[in-house]
Amino acid sequence: MQAIRDPAAIRRKCTRFLAHHYPLSPKQHLQQVADAIPDDMEADTYGSGAVITAFEAEVAQLLGKEAAVFMPSGTMCQQIALRVWSERRGFSNIAMHPQNHLDKPEKHGYLRLHGLTPLLIGNLETQLSVADVEAISEPVAALFLELPQREIGGTLPTWGDLTAMTTWARDRGIPVHMDGARLWECGPYYAREYREIAALFDTVYVSFYKALGGIAGAALAGPADVIAAARVWQRRHGGNLIRLYPYVVAARLGLQQHLPRMGEYVERAKQIGAILAGIPGIEIAPEPPQTNMMHVFLQGDISRLQDAALDISEREYVAFWRQLQPTVRPRWQRFELSIGNAALDIGDNEIDRWFREIIEHGQA
Amino acid sequence: MQAIRDPAAIRRKCTRFLAHHYPLSPKQHLQQVADAIPDDMEADTYGSGAVITAFEAEVAQLLGKEAAVFMPSGTMCQQIALRVWSERRGFSNIAMHPQNHLDKPEKHGYLRLHGLTPLLIGNLETQLSVADVEAISEPVAALFLELPQREIGGTLPTWGDLTAMTTWARDRGIPVHMDGARLWECGPYYAREYREIAALFDTVYVSFYKALGGIAGAALAGPADVIAAARVWQRRHGGNLIRLYPYVVAARLGLQQHLPRMGEYVERAKQIGAILAGIPGIEIAPEPPQTNMMHVFLQGDISRLQDAALDISEREYVAFWRQLQPTVRPRWQRFELSIGNAALDIGDNEIDRWFREIIEHGQA
Repeated sequence: MQAIRDPAAIRRKCTRFLAHHYPLSPKQHLQQVADAIPDDMEADTYGSGAVITAFEAEVAQLLGKEAAVFMPSGTMCQQIALRVWSERRGFSNIAMHPQNHLDKPEKHGYLRLHGLTPLLIGNLETQLSVADVEAISEPVAALFLELPQREIGGTLPTWGDLTAMTTWARDRGIPVHMDGARLWECGPYYAREYREIAALFDTVYVSFYKALGGIAGAALAGPADVIAAARVWQRRHGGNLIRLYPYVVAARLGLQQHLPRMGEYVERAKQIGAILAGIPGIEIAPEPPQTNMMHVFLQGDISRLQDAALDISEREYVAFWRQLQPTVRPRWQRFELSIGNAALDIGDNEIDRWFREIIEHGQA
Repeated sequence: MQAIRDPAAIRRKCTRFLAHHYPLSPKQHLQQVADAIPDDMEADTYGSGAVITAFEAEVAQLLGKEAAVFMPSGTMCQQIALRVWSERRGFSNIAMHPQNHLDKPEKHGYLRLHGLTPLLIGNLETQLSVADVEAISEPVAALFLELPQREIGGTLPTWGDLTAMTTWARDRGIPVHMDGARLWECGPYYAREYREIAALFDTVYVSFYKALGGIAGAALAGPADVIAAARVWQRRHGGNLIRLYPYVVAARLGLQQHLPRMGEYVERAKQIGAILAGIPGIEIAPEPPQTNMMHVFLQGDISRLQDAALDISEREYVAFWRQLQPTVRPRWQRFELSIGNAALDIGDNEIDRWFREIIEHGQA
């Protein structure tokens, strides 16, 4: 065992990264955004102005929706979509998976700010099934589906199940909202245009940082009247900022740079998933990965696994994970892995060698 | 009368500006921000990281408060401060001026999101008095005071009145919140440190664009426990963005560049106010200006006044106002004027000549 080391300091020296894209420093990133801005581009003002409205139109078209609105965060997009549906329907229940992003991560904002109430359906650790949706027996304002379901490794329903679930709801007049924080990452699995996937939903939230590499920001797309109402709520939320252009321009760059490469990232995730799953003491979920992400389970003592990874990071300047978390299974730990452009430059044999070393030390 | 002209196109050609600072294009502004970022500065992450916490500490110190939190907007800061006070007090009423910024401009977000209720005190067109505050007869969660009161020309209570109003409330255990969207502009009037003004209040919201020239963003300062609670609500509001550094760095630049010059801007506003008030057919409020802002009333036909101003803008490349609005008095129109660095380069004689021409044409 070594003395206590500072993982952040070690990461700072790394030049290779298993997860995500190569990091850009704030200075590099903002310089890139400034460079991409035309000399004569005018600033947006409280949501108006060509820079923001043109991008909103681009997103709406990509998702096949009438309209879209850019907001600072997905937290805002989603609560607002649900509030608008709730006001139209006269109900407050939101039917959703127990590991939705609204409850713990967003601290029940939809309940505390909007008076909306959770109606949890399905099992904690598996994807929603058609039967889970059909079992809804109380009035609901909306059905809320996350594609992919991040907290269970980024799993997706089959196209057949997705169609059945959304059709069941819409046949009953229940609007279906997509938490598409990682929708961009789902294209390869469904092998369909984003607008085809979005067509199953009434409103869709998408994010621009994560796999697209923007700075921050999100959009909500849907029918024009719903988006018009959402803009009023955006103001109430404090999200109708006088200027959003730094985020908008960065989001647009991200769409241009990363969306065409999403297939590569997903393919690389599958390859890495296969390598990891082939090492005794490592499991992945889902297996194989369905998007560019997976959960990786490591067998061993959490401190020793962590130490082994830091040893390699110090020696070979490669970063593995930000957070290794304990699981309910004794001596099994977990981290979330999302593949971006950085892993494209790492060899299969290196990954195999590194993780065998990590497991060996973790189990010693 | 000329054919219909596009005021925005005419403004685009202007090189001189009566109001605000010289405009920076988004490209220039973001370039300036990128240049100001040190090579090794790390990005903030959901509100943590040195770039944001150091700035929050700087703002807290400037305002003499235990803590401060940076948020994307003032709308968010203020609703959240009021919600926190309301939860602690167990009351929902917010005592405030009828021309507060929360009702119409922010579409009653505090009511629709937080269930807080307005208790309007005082007169529509004048500054709150001590008697208005003393007449509060229902339980209130907080007393909400805007310094300066923008919609009535940026007027301020005297130091004596301000002290009396805040003391009355605090003696009764009522927290006092400052809408300090333009607090920076009040320093010269009170001739006191910002922390002395802020000391009369329990929580203070300040803005970083307006006179400070940032891109967007705001801060809420107050007791450490209140700010800790505010951070939870910031997440619920969707304002705890993964990255806020573009706004933070721009805000810091604004504080450095413009705060030391606030006295000049206020002085220039007083000079310009005197020139305008000396022209028959023009009135200003307040007279003299108390901050860098005032309302300017022009006597004449609104279209003819507008046309006269555009004539001068086209001829001399100077921009006057963005919006001329009708008032209740027949043939009297109004615009809001805030003085920044741009008016420091305009001569007194020019202002006199231009406005005499505008009034002459407007009354013809």
